[in-house]
Amino acid sequence: MDPVICSFSLPFRYAVHFTHGAFQPSNPLVRDLVAEQKPRRILVAMEENVAFKNPQLPRAAADYLAAAGVPASVHVLPGGEAAKESAAVVRELHRAMEAEKLCRHSCVAAIGGGAFLDVAGFAAATLHRGIPLLRFPSTLLAQADAGVGVKNGINFAGKKNLVGTFAPPRAVVNDLDLLATLPTRERRAGLSEAVKVGLIRDAAFFEWIEAAAEPLREGNAAEIETLVRRCAALHIAHIATGGDPFEKGSRRPLDFGHWAAHKLEQMSAFRLRHGEAVAIGIALDSVYAARTGDLSRAELERILGTLQRLGLPLFAPELRCAEELLGGLDEFREHLGGELCVTLLRGIGRAWEVHAMDPGGIRAAIGEREAREARR
Amino acid sequence: MDPVICSFSLPFRYAVHFTHGAFQPSNPLVRDLVAEQKPRRILVAMEENVAFKNPQLPRAAADYLAAAGVPASVHVLPGGEAAKESAAVVRELHRAMEAEKLCRHSCVAAIGGGAFLDVAGFAAATLHRGIPLLRFPSTLLAQADAGVGVKNGINFAGKKNLVGTFAPPRAVVNDLDLLATLPTRERRAGLSEAVKVGLIRDAAFFEWIEAAAEPLREGNAAEIETLVRRCAALHIAHIATGGDPFEKGSRRPLDFGHWAAHKLEQMSAFRLRHGEAVAIGIALDSVYAARTGDLSRAELERILGTLQRLGLPLFAPELRCAEELLGGLDEFREHLGGELCVTLLRGIGRAWEVHAMDPGGIRAAIGEREAREARR
Repeated sequence: MDPVICSFSLPFRYAVHFTHGAFQPSNPLVRDLVAEQKPRRILVAMEENVAFKNPQLPRAAADYLAAAGVPASVHVLPGGEAAKESAAVVRELHRAMEAEKLCRHSCVAAIGGGAFLDVAGFAAATLHRGIPLLRFPSTLLAQADAGVGVKNGINFAGKKNLVGTFAPPRAVVNDLDLLATLPTRERRAGLSEAVKVGLIRDAAFFEWIEAAAEPLREGNAAEIETLVRRCAALHIAHIATGGDPFEKGSRRPLDFGHWAAHKLEQMSAFRLRHGEAVAIGIALDSVYAARTGDLSRAELERILGTLQRLGLPLFAPELRCAEELLGGLDEFREHLGGELCVTLLRGIGRAWEVHAMDPGGIRAAIGEREAREARR
Repeated sequence: MDPVICSFSLPFRYAVHFTHGAFQPSNPLVRDLVAEQKPRRILVAMEENVAFKNPQLPRAAADYLAAAGVPASVHVLPGGEAAKESAAVVRELHRAMEAEKLCRHSCVAAIGGGAFLDVAGFAAATLHRGIPLLRFPSTLLAQADAGVGVKNGINFAGKKNLVGTFAPPRAVVNDLDLLATLPTRERRAGLSEAVKVGLIRDAAFFEWIEAAAEPLREGNAAEIETLVRRCAALHIAHIATGGDPFEKGSRRPLDFGHWAAHKLEQMSAFRLRHGEAVAIGIALDSVYAARTGDLSRAELERILGTLQRLGLPLFAPELRCAEELLGGLDEFREHLGGELCVTLLRGIGRAWEVHAMDPGGIRAAIGEREAREARR
């Protein structure tokens, strides 16, 4: 009996905007976005921490949206990795969205860091099979990287992002003013994804970071803006032109340094921030590449030196539990699906993929990092 | 500052196959599907009820897949509407999938009725942001309608399908042998979606059902196969060529009779099966259309007569709670998003959409149905 074939294609399109003071009455950006989409109502999901640092923001957002003619309510909810550790915040958001009678022609505006956007994005993507989402990433990491992409998720069974979906937002608004209120540690942690993308994609960008390391470490607004724009553009280019936006294949070429980073975060019970773990992961995989001879020692020193001058950690005591860390490679393979694909360096701006890493080489790289750290 | 634009398009393609004895060693269909997709491993999620009615099936499926060279495990889980009422079965599936170390290059084969496929589909769509899904619908309703489509979901806060995603399967296998073990009531309930699709899309198909009502009611295999194939093809045509496969708009032209059906199911605490509630909803909206003059009384009699000869209910005591039932219109509007779009009839095979229904007219239609029912 002949099968019946179902075949169709779906277009996705969204813009990542850059602005200052998104909810100031004089700023037309969000008003224009709302006028274009005409949502029936908007539920603003704001991370607790953002509301704490910007106590005027919940009211400003509500007033701004009311002036734009859209019924809006602001809900302040917990964020950070803790919010991803169970389904509790997702359920709370589902309940709030249902109580506000949100429909597929409504909108969720999520304001927060990467973890909060992951949770709010998963909640929005699954109520009524998808409520349109406006993302307002509030951290450097989220504005430059995860907050502009197409993924969401929560942790499950101790594994990061095990449960989630691919769901492009309706639009992303990077409000650079939100970065001014970030604690130093959080701002600096965000720099590591920029180093990563420069190393694997854009040597000129890495060189720019290297030269601007001090102002970046100190949070100089002009340099931070340049970095956010460049990172977001590289990230979007990868999604739109990389050929696999919903990651059906096994390749994850943007994940340099991440196999160790995900595991280190988990091993540290999230004492290490994602960006810090990524810095340590970059350092480890760069040493590994130098030891295999793929990366020159001079380039390795530039990488380690830049991370250090950005104020990022290059070591954590969790690295000493090498066997447990090596388990992270298996988990990475599982999450990718199928075969292991690890992005490594052959030079600054020159990435390649390997399908196996040598455990002895990783142990030796850990030893080299530890010896160096002990001398500091 | 100029925005960065993310724009891409995703193709989706899957086949709905029709077969007998999918897991008999001599049947090459599933072996060919597996050879094409090369999953790392397969988790078979089978509805309890299917395993109970086909006690040889769990072993047959495991042996068949092992012979096809794919590591497989069979998990038997509860199904029916009760499985959708909480996230418990989804979590149980997530745990099983995680314990089996499923990755994005693995596969979930879900075997069960529409509700079970909704639950298993939601679990598969959200682990690792999407494990490929093979669906084996086991009921007439699922093979003809929901089980061949692109949706999944569970109930939340007392609302049907409030939480879920759009996620096309990798393939659907309609094993017609599974229909032979269905209880009479369940098999008959599945006929109502066929009546519905004939009434709104295909007058010739309705006339065929009208003529074949007795063999269909008795479950004659040849007529049932013809009905399943025609329904599945009409359903797929709507998804692939209707212009809105993921329902971004407000239109739901396949949902004739469904605003009342969803509410009646809920009001009856799911004593009414979905297909039975749809039959009652079709009868109600047909009487409504006859009372407004859009449908002739002669056509109304053909519709009611056909439903009755198929062994489907045309009335339920819940209809007497007219005010509560009318609340279903609001819930339908919310779920559609934005404006109300109800499909009504102007003739057999001739549907149109209205954006409001007259509560007085609905009450009168209920009264007319009740009076007629009392005379039976």
